[in-house]
Amino acid sequence: MSGHVAVLGAGSWGTAFAKILADAGREVAIWARRPPVAEAIRFRGRNPEYLPDLRLPHRVTATGDAVEAISGAEVVVLAVPSQTLRGNLAEWTSHLEPDATLVSLMKGIELGTTKRMSEVIVETAKVAADRVVVVSGPNLAPEIAAGQPAATVVACTDVGRATLVQRAVTTPYFRPYTNDDVIGCELGGAVKNVIALAYGIATAMGFGDNTRAMLITRGLAETARLGVALGADPLTFAGLAGMGDLVGTCSSPLSRNRTFGEHLGRGETLEQAQVATRQTAEGVKSCLAIRDLARAHRVEMPITEQVERVCHEGVDPRLAVRALMSRTTKPE
Amino acid sequence: MSGHVAVLGAGSWGTAFAKILADAGREVAIWARRPPVAEAIRFRGRNPEYLPDLRLPHRVTATGDAVEAISGAEVVVLAVPSQTLRGNLAEWTSHLEPDATLVSLMKGIELGTTKRMSEVIVETAKVAADRVVVVSGPNLAPEIAAGQPAATVVACTDVGRATLVQRAVTTPYFRPYTNDDVIGCELGGAVKNVIALAYGIATAMGFGDNTRAMLITRGLAETARLGVALGADPLTFAGLAGMGDLVGTCSSPLSRNRTFGEHLGRGETLEQAQVATRQTAEGVKSCLAIRDLARAHRVEMPITEQVERVCHEGVDPRLAVRALMSRTTKPE
Repeated sequence: MSGHVAVLGAGSWGTAFAKILADAGREVAIWARRPPVAEAIRFRGRNPEYLPDLRLPHRVTATGDAVEAISGAEVVVLAVPSQTLRGNLAEWTSHLEPDATLVSLMKGIELGTTKRMSEVIVETAKVAADRVVVVSGPNLAPEIAAGQPAATVVACTDVGRATLVQRAVTTPYFRPYTNDDVIGCELGGAVKNVIALAYGIATAMGFGDNTRAMLITRGLAETARLGVALGADPLTFAGLAGMGDLVGTCSSPLSRNRTFGEHLGRGETLEQAQVATRQTAEGVKSCLAIRDLARAHRVEMPITEQVERVCHEGVDPRLAVRALMSRTTKPE
Repeated sequence: MSGHVAVLGAGSWGTAFAKILADAGREVAIWARRPPVAEAIRFRGRNPEYLPDLRLPHRVTATGDAVEAISGAEVVVLAVPSQTLRGNLAEWTSHLEPDATLVSLMKGIELGTTKRMSEVIVETAKVAADRVVVVSGPNLAPEIAAGQPAATVVACTDVGRATLVQRAVTTPYFRPYTNDDVIGCELGGAVKNVIALAYGIATAMGFGDNTRAMLITRGLAETARLGVALGADPLTFAGLAGMGDLVGTCSSPLSRNRTFGEHLGRGETLEQAQVATRQTAEGVKSCLAIRDLARAHRVEMPITEQVERVCHEGVDPRLAVRALMSRTTKPE
């Protein structure tokens, strides 16, 4: 294989992204951690675990061997769970092509280190930051699999590399916009999971659209405050990777973080919500790292603080909401 | 009556706003255009036309005589239909107290003149601009009537007057934030009605949350472009009067503009939608004025352009959506 794109991770977004790449004319090799998934994609063009109704284009193949997928790939798309990235990438680094572009689809902050995914990539793969491209936007995978029109942001400090990835994923139903603000795009994606938990909690508690619009707006404001403290461009948060992703995730019943929040808002414990949804939503983990990052930079993030308390300190969501609402009025 | 607040207009927002004022401790006199409505509010504490389930506080009275409501009022709240403001206000001006604060709840742009509501007030009432306060945010009236938590922006070039109105409407369920960007707040409120029409059209056509999140994001971007051209602060659009109001309106099935758009998206003509909803949504009128304003300032507003074409030129919504989606990719 030469000049193809490797997609490492066969979750729902990795799978949908492989479809986009193939529809844009690229040859794609997906790495699936579990061999039966790789085989099903390779021989039947379907991922039985995620988006099982999606018939993948013929240009998509799959393997259970990550080295096979990476070898010869000019673009390597990383789509593994955020908290496993460092361990996975350490095994793969020596097999990357010398000038391969590394694309991150992951929306999380690493626990313990409070690093963004692109920082983990730079550290672990020992590549220059301008080789890492972040893709983030309102991109619910099931809708993309169905060919619904969507847009996204392709961010890289090297505009040429952003443009290369932009071209590799432009299809009639998928519109990528380039941007050089990697920090802002990554924070937008990571914090939105936390705000979506809050939105789910508020939804289950019966709050209406005024309250929830306020939550989204104040949630984006605290995301932007943290972003600016870390060097992001505030305008990024008004774009697809900020507001767009936040609105899309909160509006959608397909969102895992919103759904998880609804379980918490109905009074379930973290463990009960995990059992009911058969997973831990990304925001549940990231809210700890984001809160730590905010405190380290002395940034106020009241919604994130309350979500962390509900998730990890057993605080009653009703008390958390009351704490948010009772803050004093002030200029916006 | 002395030192009370006059609310001129007994529509749903005027009625809910009177409740907020009363709950914040103010004496309120509503002017209702139709005498039976004034009588029902005065004698039964209910507005039979709008929010009929809301029991208004005892501090709220009503009259069919605007001069009676205005006389002695230190704060006069204007809550009439946008396109009737100039005519109404011309009759009331000579009765205003010399230093009365004029508060606008209206979200529209005047047809023909392309003026914002505060500009119409300054011109017609012949008052200084710093006497006009704009209230705008995600404030669906039925939810406020139900006591659901909401926040809003109170904007005035005179911070002292903004603070006066802020205090007059602060209740446990209603949080007003002050701001000095009158232009930005008014444009946010006016253009969101147009974007909500587009959102309703897209919803009825079956588009999913990715597409609709993109529409909201690009809609706010074109609102901000126009705002900046007119002298607004771009950050206003990231706040409650920009993104907040837009998200609240688009998310809510209670929104008149979104609902009207859904009728159009199902293929109904403007006339059919008017018959079905028994009204013309504000965005249908404002989209003409906003498009004219954008053209005069050489600002691109592709969503507004397409909404205007669907509403007033009989263009098929499917063609309008296709025109939006086929724009070339570019930096965000």
